[in-house]
Amino acid sequence: MSSWVPRKVAIVGVGLLGGSIAAALRHRSPATRILGVGRQQDRLEKARHCGLLDEFSIHPERIDAELIVVCTPVDRIVTDVRAAAVAAEDAVITDVGSVKGQIVDQLSDPGSPISFVGSHPMAGSEKTGFENADPDLFAGARCIVCPHESADGDAVNQVRSFWEHLGSVVTEMPAAEHDRIVAAVSHLPHAVAAALTRVPSADDLPFAATGFADSTRIAAGDPDLWTAILTANAPAVLARLDEFEEQLLRLRSALNGDQAHIRSFLAAACEARRELNEPPAGP
Amino acid sequence: MSSWVPRKVAIVGVGLLGGSIAAALRHRSPATRILGVGRQQDRLEKARHCGLLDEFSIHPERIDAELIVVCTPVDRIVTDVRAAAVAAEDAVITDVGSVKGQIVDQLSDPGSPISFVGSHPMAGSEKTGFENADPDLFAGARCIVCPHESADGDAVNQVRSFWEHLGSVVTEMPAAEHDRIVAAVSHLPHAVAAALTRVPSADDLPFAATGFADSTRIAAGDPDLWTAILTANAPAVLARLDEFEEQLLRLRSALNGDQAHIRSFLAAACEARRELNEPPAGP
Repeated sequence: MSSWVPRKVAIVGVGLLGGSIAAALRHRSPATRILGVGRQQDRLEKARHCGLLDEFSIHPERIDAELIVVCTPVDRIVTDVRAAAVAAEDAVITDVGSVKGQIVDQLSDPGSPISFVGSHPMAGSEKTGFENADPDLFAGARCIVCPHESADGDAVNQVRSFWEHLGSVVTEMPAAEHDRIVAAVSHLPHAVAAALTRVPSADDLPFAATGFADSTRIAAGDPDLWTAILTANAPAVLARLDEFEEQLLRLRSALNGDQAHIRSFLAAACEARRELNEPPAGP
Repeated sequence: MSSWVPRKVAIVGVGLLGGSIAAALRHRSPATRILGVGRQQDRLEKARHCGLLDEFSIHPERIDAELIVVCTPVDRIVTDVRAAAVAAEDAVITDVGSVKGQIVDQLSDPGSPISFVGSHPMAGSEKTGFENADPDLFAGARCIVCPHESADGDAVNQVRSFWEHLGSVVTEMPAAEHDRIVAAVSHLPHAVAAALTRVPSADDLPFAATGFADSTRIAAGDPDLWTAILTANAPAVLARLDEFEEQLLRLRSALNGDQAHIRSFLAAACEARRELNEPPAGP
């Protein structure tokens, strides 16, 4: 199964991620046919004109692809997977959403005819739109695949194999574990950066230097996308916020205490941060 | 006064900042003589050999410079300024410490013969040592000058003029205001980055991407330097931590509420962050 390549792939939502999947397929398996599905005819026409798509549709009655990848925002994925399943019959469907629990649960009723396996390719860019599509976006990047316990084994293998074909390093884990991890390494940091941005007054900000710029950079991300993400993963983010506030209590106690406490707090953090390899680009 | 250039400058502590001051003087006023004062004979000899210093001393009995710039860590500045004052008599003394209240207060007894005017050039680098000295480090960077209310007006003008000569944009303000501002834009973000680093487990960290890397980068800074900074500015940092925790309460309430609350929290932060121009390098 490790070299399964679908003959035809449908991409629902041809933005940066969907466009990059198309571009990667063009490079790695030029014979694969690509159908784009979206809401804006002119955008899809342009993506076809660029060579990313072979065909496109706004309301496909029938999708004859073997694999459908839903690349719409987190709060639209469940609806879009269900719509794709109606048109598709036999296709395996996956997504690229950065929250998995709600989506996987809602799409995995035991009686459902939908063959869905959730994915989260941990790759991205501050850029948007298929014009910035990058055929190497997934190469070397991690991709977490979260099959529901009721998922079909062949479907899981096909989805894993698809991401590996695009160059990703695939890890399989339950959706709840995925959500707990991304809450710690992505969603909480985003929320904290947003909170940090609101502390200095407008008069203070001219004195901000790279430290402030780095630590708040992600707060400039699209508020709509991040609202959908934080909403969908609110329970896990709240649990991580509890852990973070425990750390702030230790910090407060250190600041009220002596140098030795401050130093041990900072030294542990410094060691942890220095062990982190600077990762490749990704949200 | 705006073009006052000292004929002889003593630099106490010839590391990255002290070395960069020397390099900037070499470029901008080659006639200025530079005396290096430090603790390690071999390092000072090497800095002289590089051309940064004209002379150096470990324990100068007499410093005949017009201006002395103390570039040692925050927790050594008061001692080093006092030692320099004993050797100097008539010199104006300034520093580069990133906390100002404690230092300015302790060095400004009304009866003291020391002519001290505190400075904080907001420039720096992750690099250390005079080998990385940059003659343009201060060019275009902000420098906050914090005279005590008892400070001599001529001394204040000389220190302002000195930083302007190195290319800095000088702002004058009381030390307490400086400390309140840097607590918000530098010290709190450092402490928060440290706390954030401690939330994910070692098993979670391989899934961290650029968002986590950016928002925790400053936590890799030298724990000794930052312990001295947070210790010296603990009251202002604690006050900013209160403000930050108010923001976290609003975030928590938004996460427990509805999408509209999350969106308005993120949108305000996004707008504030996007208004921040990416600043030049500096801690």
